[in-house]
Amino acid sequence: MKEIIRSVKPTDKSRQAEIQHKIDLKTKPLGALGMLEEIALKMSMIQASLLPEVGSKGMLVFAADHGITDEGVSAYPADVTPQMVINFINGGAAINAFCRTGGINMSIIDIGVNFDFEADSRLIDMKVRKGTRNFAAEHAMTAEEAEQAVSAGMNAFNMMYDKHKVSIIGLGEMGIGNTTSASAIISAVTGKPAAEVAGRGTGLDDKGLEHKTEIIEKALALHKPDGSDGLDLLKKIGGYEIAGMAGAALAAAEKGVAVVFDGLISTAAALIAWRLNPAIADYAFAGHKSIEAGQKSALQLLGLTPIVDYGMRLGEGTGAAIAMHTIDCACAFMRDMASFEDAGVSEKN
Amino acid sequence: MKEIIRSVKPTDKSRQAEIQHKIDLKTKPLGALGMLEEIALKMSMIQASLLPEVGSKGMLVFAADHGITDEGVSAYPADVTPQMVINFINGGAAINAFCRTGGINMSIIDIGVNFDFEADSRLIDMKVRKGTRNFAAEHAMTAEEAEQAVSAGMNAFNMMYDKHKVSIIGLGEMGIGNTTSASAIISAVTGKPAAEVAGRGTGLDDKGLEHKTEIIEKALALHKPDGSDGLDLLKKIGGYEIAGMAGAALAAAEKGVAVVFDGLISTAAALIAWRLNPAIADYAFAGHKSIEAGQKSALQLLGLTPIVDYGMRLGEGTGAAIAMHTIDCACAFMRDMASFEDAGVSEKN
Repeated sequence: MKEIIRSVKPTDKSRQAEIQHKIDLKTKPLGALGMLEEIALKMSMIQASLLPEVGSKGMLVFAADHGITDEGVSAYPADVTPQMVINFINGGAAINAFCRTGGINMSIIDIGVNFDFEADSRLIDMKVRKGTRNFAAEHAMTAEEAEQAVSAGMNAFNMMYDKHKVSIIGLGEMGIGNTTSASAIISAVTGKPAAEVAGRGTGLDDKGLEHKTEIIEKALALHKPDGSDGLDLLKKIGGYEIAGMAGAALAAAEKGVAVVFDGLISTAAALIAWRLNPAIADYAFAGHKSIEAGQKSALQLLGLTPIVDYGMRLGEGTGAAIAMHTIDCACAFMRDMASFEDAGVSEKN
Repeated sequence: MKEIIRSVKPTDKSRQAEIQHKIDLKTKPLGALGMLEEIALKMSMIQASLLPEVGSKGMLVFAADHGITDEGVSAYPADVTPQMVINFINGGAAINAFCRTGGINMSIIDIGVNFDFEADSRLIDMKVRKGTRNFAAEHAMTAEEAEQAVSAGMNAFNMMYDKHKVSIIGLGEMGIGNTTSASAIISAVTGKPAAEVAGRGTGLDDKGLEHKTEIIEKALALHKPDGSDGLDLLKKIGGYEIAGMAGAALAAAEKGVAVVFDGLISTAAALIAWRLNPAIADYAFAGHKSIEAGQKSALQLLGLTPIVDYGMRLGEGTGAAIAMHTIDCACAFMRDMASFEDAGVSEKN
């Protein structure tokens, strides 16, 4: 695990000018493809190529349960986690529909669900434990479990990579209670108070939101996680699926594969990965703008701007899946569009 | 032409509750798919089906020249219109790259370019005239030409429909000078002064923008187009590609095909179509948020919200092409996602 974390290297900034020059020569007014030009630049840097490509696409959906649900922080019962995993297996969730539409290979990973699933080739069993401990009272996991979950995420990515040779990977999740863990992580890393980063999750009312904020504040005061230490954050206030996504992101970056994060929880995992090795930001895209306030602070630290903003609040990787198509289009213009010279088109007066 | 215009019928609002109910039963918190739920609802209404589908997709790119370029309103020379048409034919433009990526069938229509193209099966020749007249001095086109261009757009759609049985169509354009015509139309229809709707097009500086605004103001004062009359607007201040897109939109709606508009010029065409028959709005999506101020006022009238916002300012249908993937995902969740009951997932506490 530590070897992979160390091996993620920043992209080679010395190539940036050459890549930008190629973008500027395309048959369009300077900058006219807006954000797609930034995406094309980043993909070119990641792949160290003037001909970046989104070939095979992958989506890893990590599922886990959270002891913190004992505190009544979610609008849905914890049973929904395993129920939704079964829904993923049967192809009936939103992320299944989006992956089919986008031609994205999808893996479902049980990294910590509080349920004994029947063996199924469509479910990867990497269960660390049947859910985290209640971090309002004790550490969410042991240090060994945190490392095991990060390693599991790395392995899940490597299985996808070996099988489908993906050049881009989306990271989604399912876990009732996980916006509480994610918000706590974002608060600890950004230094913003819980009240500024916590949101309504799957649908809390005002009273529920107040309670959730209080739980986060108390837990942070109790455990005093080190906001600069990814593993300490996971151990004290994390979730297994968050650890898994962080590990998968680092393993992907190590292989030069672009990583598309999704909403709030996925972005908390990005922060963990970034604390483990800040070079991850060079490989990262923010797929979807969350309606949860916490994401914005996290993305500012990471230097990322969400690709789409559909007011979704589902997680699962749904925003990442849609954003991948935009990244695909950005690479396509970079590869296939003619230059002014090639096409014999006149330049600006 | 007039028969098709008359035949566009509003969608059946009596089905809305039933469709919304189906969306609400899907395995997700209420409203958690945000804008995709609105898109799914609209596609279901358009197709009068609880199982809406984006099957075959089309993109019509209309090209034409503009006499108004004599007034120096564009940052690029008018030669760029035919040069870019040749670029489209050769597959080297951004819209070609995006259509290939999205599996979208693309047609290129010469509806008024000031150039004699060699006959080519990849270019549809529907040229009305070699560019409009300079509407700073005289009407842009005759009434007959306006009707001919609208009819040509209808025919271009019908050719695409007959060949590819599309269920969704994007409308893009190329025409140096056409933001001036589009801004004039938007000003005339919305009643907003030219200074509030005109923008920098392909890249005017402050002085250029001021000049363009003045040209629009003078032309509107000279011709006094009737902002409620689509054909009068086309005749006095229109463009052949704008007329073509309006015609294509109406022909598509008449067949129950969803229409995805693009940036500023495409949105001006939407206004023309809407003045010819307001029911078009029931079939219309705004693909991309334009950085030109005029689009916002136009979309307010039409009741549309842009699907993507990438700060692009290229036209060609580029924003519409990307947005189609989102519409595809919205239909996919509507068709394929399980309900709480089907999946055995618990509902909210």
